[in-house]
Amino acid sequence: MKVVCPGSFDPITNGHLDIIQRCSEQFDEVVVLVTANPNKSSGLFSVAERVELIEKTVQELDNVTVEWWSQLLVDYTTAHQVDAIVKGLRSSLDYEYELPMAQMNRRLSGIDTLFFMTSPQWGYISSTLLKEVARFGGDIHHMVPSAVSEALSKKYRSS
Amino acid sequence: MKVVCPGSFDPITNGHLDIIQRCSEQFDEVVVLVTANPNKSSGLFSVAERVELIEKTVQELDNVTVEWWSQLLVDYTTAHQVDAIVKGLRSSLDYEYELPMAQMNRRLSGIDTLFFMTSPQWGYISSTLLKEVARFGGDIHHMVPSAVSEALSKKYRSS
Amino acid sequence: MKVVCPGSFDPITNGHLDIIQRCSEQFDEVVVLVTANPNKSSGLFSVAERVELIEKTVQELDNVTVEWWSQLLVDYTTAHQVDAIVKGLRSSLDYEYELPMAQMNRRLSGIDTLFFMTSPQWGYISSTLLKEVARFGGDIHHMVPSAVSEALSKKYRSS
Amino acid sequence: MKVVCPGSFDPITNGHLDIIQRCSEQFDEVVVLVTANPNKSSGLFSVAERVELIEKTVQELDNVTVEWWSQLLVDYTTAHQVDAIVKGLRSSLDYEYELPMAQMNRRLSGIDTLFFMTSPQWGYISSTLLKEVARFGGDIHHMVPSAVSEALSKKYRSS
Amino acid sequence: MKVVCPGSFDPITNGHLDIIQRCSEQFDEVVVLVTANPNKSSGLFSVAERVELIEKTVQELDNVTVEWWSQLLVDYTTAHQVDAIVKGLRSSLDYEYELPMAQMNRRLSGIDTLFFMTSPQWGYISSTLLKEVARFGGDIHHMVPSAVSEALSKKYRSS
Amino acid sequence: MKVVCPGSFDPITNGHLDIIQRCSEQFDEVVVLVTANPNKSSGLFSVAERVELIEKTVQELDNVTVEWWSQLLVDYTTAHQVDAIVKGLRSSLDYEYELPMAQMNRRLSGIDTLFFMTSPQWGYISSTLLKEVARFGGDIHHMVPSAVSEALSKKYRSS
Repeated sequence: MKVVCPGSFDPITNGHLDIIQRCSEQFDEVVVLVTANPNKSSGLFSVAERVELIEKTVQELDNVTVEWWSQLLVDYTTAHQVDAIVKGLRSSLDYEYELPMAQMNRRLSGIDTLFFMTSPQWGYISSTLLKEVARFGGDIHHMVPSAVSEALSKKYRSS
Repeated sequence: MKVVCPGSFDPITNGHLDIIQRCSEQFDEVVVLVTANPNKSSGLFSVAERVELIEKTVQELDNVTVEWWSQLLVDYTTAHQVDAIVKGLRSSLDYEYELPMAQMNRRLSGIDTLFFMTSPQWGYISSTLLKEVARFGGDIHHMVPSAVSEALSKKYRSS
Repeated sequence: MKVVCPGSFDPITNGHLDIIQRCSEQFDEVVVLVTANPNKSSGLFSVAERVELIEKTVQELDNVTVEWWSQLLVDYTTAHQVDAIVKGLRSSLDYEYELPMAQMNRRLSGIDTLFFMTSPQWGYISSTLLKEVARFGGDIHHMVPSAVSEALSKKYRSS
Repeated sequence: MKVVCPGSFDPITNGHLDIIQRCSEQFDEVVVLVTANPNKSSGLFSVAERVELIEKTVQELDNVTVEWWSQLLVDYTTAHQVDAIVKGLRSSLDYEYELPMAQMNRRLSGIDTLFFMTSPQWGYISSTLLKEVARFGGDIHHMVPSAVSEALSKKYRSS
Repeated sequence: MKVVCPGSFDPITNGHLDIIQRCSEQFDEVVVLVTANPNKSSGLFSVAERVELIEKTVQELDNVTVEWWSQLLVDYTTAHQVDAIVKGLRSSLDYEYELPMAQMNRRLSGIDTLFFMTSPQWGYISSTLLKEVARFGGDIHHMVPSAVSEALSKKYRSS
Repeated sequence: MKVVCPGSFDPITNGHLDIIQRCSEQFDEVVVLVTANPNKSSGLFSVAERVELIEKTVQELDNVTVEWWSQLLVDYTTAHQVDAIVKGLRSSLDYEYELPMAQMNRRLSGIDTLFFMTSPQWGYISSTLLKEVARFGGDIHHMVPSAVSEALSKKYRSS
């Protein structure tokens, strides 16, 4: 069974990693897919940087690969014989945001979405919130993979 | 009983149409009101285009008219002797967003708001989500009236 | 337009009354319908007492009548040419409980349900909570019609 | 990959069937597990009847089997090398109820839970609600497999 | 500042203890109040046992005392000059259940309620869920104080 | 006990004032802290104006002071020996937004956050919504302190 974990990953957090690891245990093949969301086009990291940070983070997970995609998610899943989309749910608010997208994707191409509940210790982490903290020099190294911690330091030092 | 269905309708979807039809069955007069929300001023369709698309869609509903308004909603409802505002609820998230507006409008002018639960088959549709899909060439013709389907094709082909 | 406000009304509260009054302003005919819910059959007040307390409370609202019903709600609405069911929503939790019932009723007989947002000052009141308070002698006279306040005093004094 | 779909299934509905079918497409082996919930011990159907109704319903799904269990769910999943628990989510309320159980089960035995969003057309169905409707003679045959429709008729005719 | 932490505590969990400890750090005096909820009168532990288990658990917190109360909570807080009620929130569902009680208590006596967010690692624990697990021999010693773990073992062994 | 009430306060509303007054009754020292949120840098009022409007509003509350801060909130609370952050909750949606921030702040510096439920009569007010109303000439004087009402009139007359 081949699944895809889509997201903007700007940058990858320990919350994302938790879901990817659980996918890696459950499924045969896992594609982490950086989607360039048209509404969030100007992120902190470029798409290439995001892919590189994920690759450094998941390199020991043999069945996980990293790709990026700028078109409709269902065009990717159809073209690459993906069996299911996987997302994490941190809260009932996430549920409300994910529900229409899951139903839309199923309607568009028949693909189904599977959800994991985010592990409690990472439920408070979002890329947005931790960038805000990092920008002001807050210590976020417990919330992100080490490659991201370094990358964030460089970004904000140089800015 | 005269009601108003306000919204940005950029563009009208089958979800909107479902609520308008149910209003048309229940109430004597229904005004579909395109409100030019100051926070979303730059939509995909102009206000005139939105009005035209709704008019094409509801032309067989005799007790439904279409208007637009760029001021406070309660100024419209007071000036036009509207008995109630009507909105659809797709989710508990919609409930949370609509509640303060309903209470605000009642406080400002005394007008009440009535809610319908969106029909299950349209609950996943929002103008925002379907524009994102249409922009990438996804097939949205089952989610919108036919006039809108054509208009979206033209918009994105020409852009 | 004829609507029905169903509920167990054990007993009627100011929150219920708020919805009934707003219905009375909007619609031609309003039936307050005491439904003997099979899951809550053993209430504090008998069905006859509940009807009587509502009648005392709404006697000045000319277009409001009170009835009771022990069968399926949609059998009542079909038999009595009711145009719509009306319910109040106190919270997003109420939304979640009412949604399946509204969809079920529409599926069973075609009848639609309209929702009002409960007025803020009564949002915290439920028949269950106020009975608990009244049972311990708490002062609930601001939360219920005067007839109910007296009836509750009698119930708990004699018990 | 072997998954288990636990539930009280008193009785199985089209909502349950929807999730079971989607599991059947995604996973190698699917066990539908009737759990005799200690808090709901006195259901309408006996555990044996529930198992039989599910078996009739899923007989054409080759990779689906039906079992029952009266102990801790994680004892079943550990003893039978189950890879994951699967549940359906009808609403954000379901999310709130399922979250603690998923975290508890993961804490107790390491097993993870995967969630599907219930298909929109079945979101309003629960075993509890449809039994209430069937008890009063409401037509629920569109909401349940045909074997259940017949079994419900018999139950309520004879009672 | 003197606060009260009310609850049924049948039995105290690590989730309760987390809130009590945070209260102990913030406030001068903390009363843990076992309330004999009329709707849950027949718990697993007697009120005396619950008090004893809490006392064993909080004995090193110098500003914490334990009491029980079978009347209205606001009668306790008024009689004992309590400044505020404190509750923990595990989820938005808890929010919805606590809101009416907080507003009711404030209306009845003027007393305010302060809320802490439950620590993520205990969010999945409820007395109800862990009793269900313990009853079937599941290992719950990481979820409760040690005195409770022993007491639960005894209860279920002897039953 | 010293607490801080952080927010953008653009401008202060009666909803904010309600929370500040309740803090003033419960705690020894209250700092109302205007945080210049980097994501909302371009507000209607300048930070200096916001501070001034709050000062005019709270001048009779002896234990309340007003400050502003443009760095991480936890850097303020650590530097100024603040015991706890205080926020108001208007809805379960607020709960979902505040939860990650409260957990983040506790993780970053150990500081805890206490929540009050917003009083029902102010639950529908947000700075954003009332600015939208005021901009179109709606009467918002019942929703804000008098100093704010005047300041809003000036802003929108001159614009």
